[in-house]
Amino acid sequence: MVHTCGMAKKSNSTVRPSKSISELLRLPKGPVNMASLDPAGRPGYPGHGKSDADGYTAAIGPILADLQERLFANGKSTPVDAKRVLLVLQGMDTSGKGGVITHAVGLVDPQGVHIKGFKAPTPEELSHDFLWRIRNALPDPGMIGIFDRSHYEDVLVVRVENLVPVSEWDGRYDLINTFEAELAAAGYLIIKCFLNISPGEQKLRLAARLADPSKYWKYNPRDVNAHEKWGAYMEAYKDALERCNTDAAPWYVIPSDRKWYRNWAIAEILKEQLVAQGFTWPAANFDVAAEKARVAAI
Amino acid sequence: MVHTCGMAKKSNSTVRPSKSISELLRLPKGPVNMASLDPAGRPGYPGHGKSDADGYTAAIGPILADLQERLFANGKSTPVDAKRVLLVLQGMDTSGKGGVITHAVGLVDPQGVHIKGFKAPTPEELSHDFLWRIRNALPDPGMIGIFDRSHYEDVLVVRVENLVPVSEWDGRYDLINTFEAELAAAGYLIIKCFLNISPGEQKLRLAARLADPSKYWKYNPRDVNAHEKWGAYMEAYKDALERCNTDAAPWYVIPSDRKWYRNWAIAEILKEQLVAQGFTWPAANFDVAAEKARVAAI
Repeated sequence: MVHTCGMAKKSNSTVRPSKSISELLRLPKGPVNMASLDPAGRPGYPGHGKSDADGYTAAIGPILADLQERLFANGKSTPVDAKRVLLVLQGMDTSGKGGVITHAVGLVDPQGVHIKGFKAPTPEELSHDFLWRIRNALPDPGMIGIFDRSHYEDVLVVRVENLVPVSEWDGRYDLINTFEAELAAAGYLIIKCFLNISPGEQKLRLAARLADPSKYWKYNPRDVNAHEKWGAYMEAYKDALERCNTDAAPWYVIPSDRKWYRNWAIAEILKEQLVAQGFTWPAANFDVAAEKARVAAI
Repeated sequence: MVHTCGMAKKSNSTVRPSKSISELLRLPKGPVNMASLDPAGRPGYPGHGKSDADGYTAAIGPILADLQERLFANGKSTPVDAKRVLLVLQGMDTSGKGGVITHAVGLVDPQGVHIKGFKAPTPEELSHDFLWRIRNALPDPGMIGIFDRSHYEDVLVVRVENLVPVSEWDGRYDLINTFEAELAAAGYLIIKCFLNISPGEQKLRLAARLADPSKYWKYNPRDVNAHEKWGAYMEAYKDALERCNTDAAPWYVIPSDRKWYRNWAIAEILKEQLVAQGFTWPAANFDVAAEKARVAAI
């Protein structure tokens, strides 16, 4: 008798949705209602929950690593034509930008990844247009660039803290769209993720940092100041999401109250987007038979 | 009856050596005889061989990741005092510099790693002293910098290919020692690894690249030219190893004909060297009780 029970579906929760995770989490174009974006959802997650998330995320690893190596190989062989990937991570403090880099980006070869964190601008950076430091940090051909914060800070913290006049930041949405369209036309695959956490979850995470001396270094008293301006930040995020949500550089809204879902979802979106590129291995740019003969002769 | 068989030693090969891997692979000071350096050895490997190497290397991962996070935390909290790590990888083509980054460096959070590959210098780089581009690529406080090739190319390929006069490259050994001593005094932990492969193994690896279309991109016809100058390269390596082997910046010679040993050994040395630093978590630079109260009130 052949056992078939191992192949039986345990419940509907293990059935893959017909929509991809990219489709499920892609922010629809048009007006954005921040209150309608669920930070605790788990759309499309194929497993049961936290208990099996490490396994589902790890299973993406070899596929993502293979895709990344193909991308990288093309970058080395035909840099002029090769794609570049830009993963933009935005979100309130503790939303997990660093955690995504550790657990999702960490699935691929670190040689293929260029990580850039954007802090408060230096005097030199301030002496230039706000996109100057961004342009300087763009990934090389074949690389996956990760922006931990980005040019969006110039319409988020800059707006909330009144660091420049309204007339200045209000013009930046169009400048950003033009900039991102330019990058897309030049072969950049842009994936922008808003890591959506609730203020309640942020409070828990800040408290957790204060409860553990090995996490003190992650705590910054200014994070509480920002928490107190939650409403103003959500207004600024609403405009950034609504006004800069283009086909060239779409926004994905990642429910991030559950760390395991957040990491899995971003790894999965990255995988889906790279699969869609249909990367092939680059052809040899030398005479294979002749080189085989040379190597055989040494 | 208590089972004890699982705790019994299976053979002497599972007994940890009394010397650390750092001690075993540390190049002794004094004259170097390249022919005496065994590329196929496996000094100090605690297991049986290739079959269990993935497990031994993976087991280093969590320890190394913890050490790296402590280093990183100190870099964020007290950058002026924090250590910086510089892992220099040198070796002939196919010796596995990239493989070490994928499999050993890949064990830690990519946010804590800064990888820099040095190719043939650009016109701008050539217009400066040979250490200029090296200084520009040094890791920030708390970071692990990885040099895939390095300033040693300026006494290796530059010497073998006669790219500068003898009088110029011959002066560089002292300049390198002075430079590395300066870095060590400034808080850099320098770990230099020579990935030692045999010419026979290199031939096999070049042939393997030509036998697999997914590896064509790794193949460069110039690698055969370099292979034909093996003797000249070994003379140049001998001088680099002999003349730049200081307490401030020691050389480790890594037997690299076996990829699994090479990756394990470098992960182990990195772990041992970081353990020896005795990193503690940085103290809070804020009033913990006051901040707990602030967070509780939000």
